[in-house]
Amino acid sequence: MTTPSAETLENDPEYRSAIVDLLGLLAMGELMAFERLATDAALAPLIEDKIALARLATSEFQHFEDLRQRIEVLGADPDQVMLEFRKPLDEFHAHTAPSDWLEGMVKAYVGEGIASDFYREIANLLDGETRTLVLRVCDDFEHQEFIVDRVRLAIQEDPKVAGRLALWGRRLVGEALSQSQRVAAEHDSLSVLIVGGVDRPGADLAEIGRMLARLTENHARRMTALGLAA
Amino acid sequence: MTTPSAETLENDPEYRSAIVDLLGLLAMGELMAFERLATDAALAPLIEDKIALARLATSEFQHFEDLRQRIEVLGADPDQVMLEFRKPLDEFHAHTAPSDWLEGMVKAYVGEGIASDFYREIANLLDGETRTLVLRVCDDFEHQEFIVDRVRLAIQEDPKVAGRLALWGRRLVGEALSQSQRVAAEHDSLSVLIVGGVDRPGADLAEIGRMLARLTENHARRMTALGLAA
Repeated sequence: MTTPSAETLENDPEYRSAIVDLLGLLAMGELMAFERLATDAALAPLIEDKIALARLATSEFQHFEDLRQRIEVLGADPDQVMLEFRKPLDEFHAHTAPSDWLEGMVKAYVGEGIASDFYREIANLLDGETRTLVLRVCDDFEHQEFIVDRVRLAIQEDPKVAGRLALWGRRLVGEALSQSQRVAAEHDSLSVLIVGGVDRPGADLAEIGRMLARLTENHARRMTALGLAA
Repeated sequence: MTTPSAETLENDPEYRSAIVDLLGLLAMGELMAFERLATDAALAPLIEDKIALARLATSEFQHFEDLRQRIEVLGADPDQVMLEFRKPLDEFHAHTAPSDWLEGMVKAYVGEGIASDFYREIANLLDGETRTLVLRVCDDFEHQEFIVDRVRLAIQEDPKVAGRLALWGRRLVGEALSQSQRVAAEHDSLSVLIVGGVDRPGADLAEIGRMLARLTENHARRMTALGLAA
């Protein structure tokens, strides 16, 4: 498999438009992550958690601004591109509204984790400049150990919580999958980005299988870190 | 009236502790403003409003970080100082929870406006370095003309809205006043900052009167800008 070059971005309108779509999806996701994390911050009982979540939200918003700017450089209208992805993301969040702060924390940790892993996988298939941007945007969610601490402590205080949160984790993944399928079905460009186009090789089936396996393993690892059955 | 010098901050523990309190109040206010504006962003129907509000929220959070850092430089624990002001600010927000997005916008415009005016007035009484920080933190809320546009448009579409929002504006001011009195009553240091201490002259009664007049006039001007009776 070879990755596209800067010239592909310049000369292949199909690739370029797929990249614009990808950045639009990512930007809309970051804006909504900002909103969700900020809402979690507002609900946080401890001031240090409030601050940590607000800081995280703010950094998602910075990424959002970077993505917007890049979409503009590529000659598209960011608001218009993002709006195409508002509905599936809105529905994802509407179907996974946390019923308490703890569910919010699991959602932030598990949801941002899967999303980051997914974009990092896709980044491997992209031209250098886009890859750098995507990797930078995905870089933040690594060290949120305070979330792990909070969830583990809650389980320690009341072991029944673990069952409810494990179910919650499965629901998050199920909903993420079904909205992803919808996005892929409505945007051929994004599927083509992964599987390649006429003049541009992409990932083959075996690679896609390995990618899904890695996503699943990482998700299981995160659930275990939280003290939850995947 | 003379303003305190950098030496006052160094050598007068009473003044220094009053400044720490003031910065703590301001920091807690900024953190909560971040939360409220981010929540408003989440509720905004138009994506350009979402972005404008999220951008504003993010900039309030940057101020919050600056204030925290300054409190640390002055040798105090920011979290502890801020926590003293959590309750009155929490109550202000609990008593003025907007019932829709429009009320949220009026609250942001009118509430941040009064708060900024108030801190700007106090800034005149402070040493140079603190004054610069406080003025910088208050600098953001000037050009939020999109809020004015949204509110005026809503009134144009349904003139009845104006009466409800005018009442809402009065309720916001009433609640702000009653929580401010509470803060002042519980924190002598802040009152002393305004009226002065044994060795440090502050504002006299006439000055305080003029300050209140200016706050009231500016509030009325903002209500008029929104198309509302003050």
